[in-house]
Amino acid sequence: MPRVAVGLEYDGSAYRGWQVQSAAPSVAAVVSHAFARVADHPLDLICAGRTDAGVHALGQVVHFDTPARRTQRAWVLGANSELPADVRVQWAREVPEHFHARFSALWREYHYRILNRPIASALQRDRAAWIREPLALAPMAAAARLCIGEHDFASFRAAECQSRTSVRNLQIFEVQQAGAILTLRVRANAFLHHMVRNLAGWLIAVGKGERQVSETLTVLQARDRRLAGTTAAATGLYFYQVGYSEAFGLPGPVEAPP
Amino acid sequence: MPRVAVGLEYDGSAYRGWQVQSAAPSVAAVVSHAFARVADHPLDLICAGRTDAGVHALGQVVHFDTPARRTQRAWVLGANSELPADVRVQWAREVPEHFHARFSALWREYHYRILNRPIASALQRDRAAWIREPLALAPMAAAARLCIGEHDFASFRAAECQSRTSVRNLQIFEVQQAGAILTLRVRANAFLHHMVRNLAGWLIAVGKGERQVSETLTVLQARDRRLAGTTAAATGLYFYQVGYSEAFGLPGPVEAPP
Repeated sequence: MPRVAVGLEYDGSAYRGWQVQSAAPSVAAVVSHAFARVADHPLDLICAGRTDAGVHALGQVVHFDTPARRTQRAWVLGANSELPADVRVQWAREVPEHFHARFSALWREYHYRILNRPIASALQRDRAAWIREPLALAPMAAAARLCIGEHDFASFRAAECQSRTSVRNLQIFEVQQAGAILTLRVRANAFLHHMVRNLAGWLIAVGKGERQVSETLTVLQARDRRLAGTTAAATGLYFYQVGYSEAFGLPGPVEAPP
Repeated sequence: MPRVAVGLEYDGSAYRGWQVQSAAPSVAAVVSHAFARVADHPLDLICAGRTDAGVHALGQVVHFDTPARRTQRAWVLGANSELPADVRVQWAREVPEHFHARFSALWREYHYRILNRPIASALQRDRAAWIREPLALAPMAAAARLCIGEHDFASFRAAECQSRTSVRNLQIFEVQQAGAILTLRVRANAFLHHMVRNLAGWLIAVGKGERQVSETLTVLQARDRRLAGTTAAATGLYFYQVGYSEAFGLPGPVEAPP
């Protein structure tokens, strides 16, 4: 049966997350409803990475199986005509049966946006986490560099995390600045539950001077969630892109400032 | 009686505009309510430039008169604690009695943001006007340059516009590009009703190749609204900043990407 992969952008503000057990609105519910209308049958979605309530996505990838044959254009325009404006399908491609949105992913990249200024922003209120105390960039970047590589990230893992192992390979972790907006860019083979928000919370504490750069290694080595401080707000988090083998020929994320 | 000037940022998406006669929510209503709570008396606001439904502001300026004495910090934090999150006071300053948010303004600057790509954006849906057809930047910039200077802008004025004269002095009109986002930056001594959206509509028609750059002068000279085409969507429009004499010592707009 043909398998279809789809690239999604969404504003997570109005959703309880990618998928929830309750009747609360989830991104998965509106997206599967839209594609079911185009395919003319109910369908199940598999996503590259589940997102929490309020978390956005620029390059989420999902797949589903369907006997329906539609053009790429028909999948994209058809689903978008069924979707609310805060979720937009960016592309759709027929993929081989061995493609799996979650298990074929080689890496995931998240961006965490911080608005760092004394007064909050009306326009950025759902688009960036607001930190009023001035953050020192250099210590944050230094702490981020210490996290790069393969580590046991148990100190940065939510209590509810169900992963068998907490070892992950962090390939990119850097801090970019554009005016009052700081963006933490982090890429890994995979992430633990709340790992990006916990790493962001740690970097924010270092940026405020509450914690020292050198403590980063101590916290990593302790494998103790109690040492790594608070989880940063969901509001600043973007599921930015997923890497797959080039053999699948999938498009990257569509460029757009969040 | 002391006069207070205030800088405002707002997301216009949920409002019927700056001020409306009806019971519909207006930005002026929530802002005057918030400052009335801090001042402990009802008050009237005067703004630098009224904005339409759905139009945003980064550097709107308003003033009001009050016998209440409060610190700058008390005005800002007090009003923000009363305001919904889509409106944020950025600063407050006591100003001399001869300051007037509207009549003291030397110039106003608007930005018009266009997302130019085939598929709409979830995150930019209320933050930029979406144009799917590719826009040619160079002709748009050339048409913009032809509008600079003092002209009768009657062709770009809404039928309901109540201004006595339609002559305005356009000081800046340029097109900036950052990825898929085009920003039209336009500054004038003052604007007619719908003037920025009508100029944006004209530039979009030129960018699509529907109209020629050279027609811009013909349309200007004709002083006939029917020739200048469609009014661009409110969604892309930002009231960016207002210029006053430096003698008033007011802050500029707080830097933040919209």
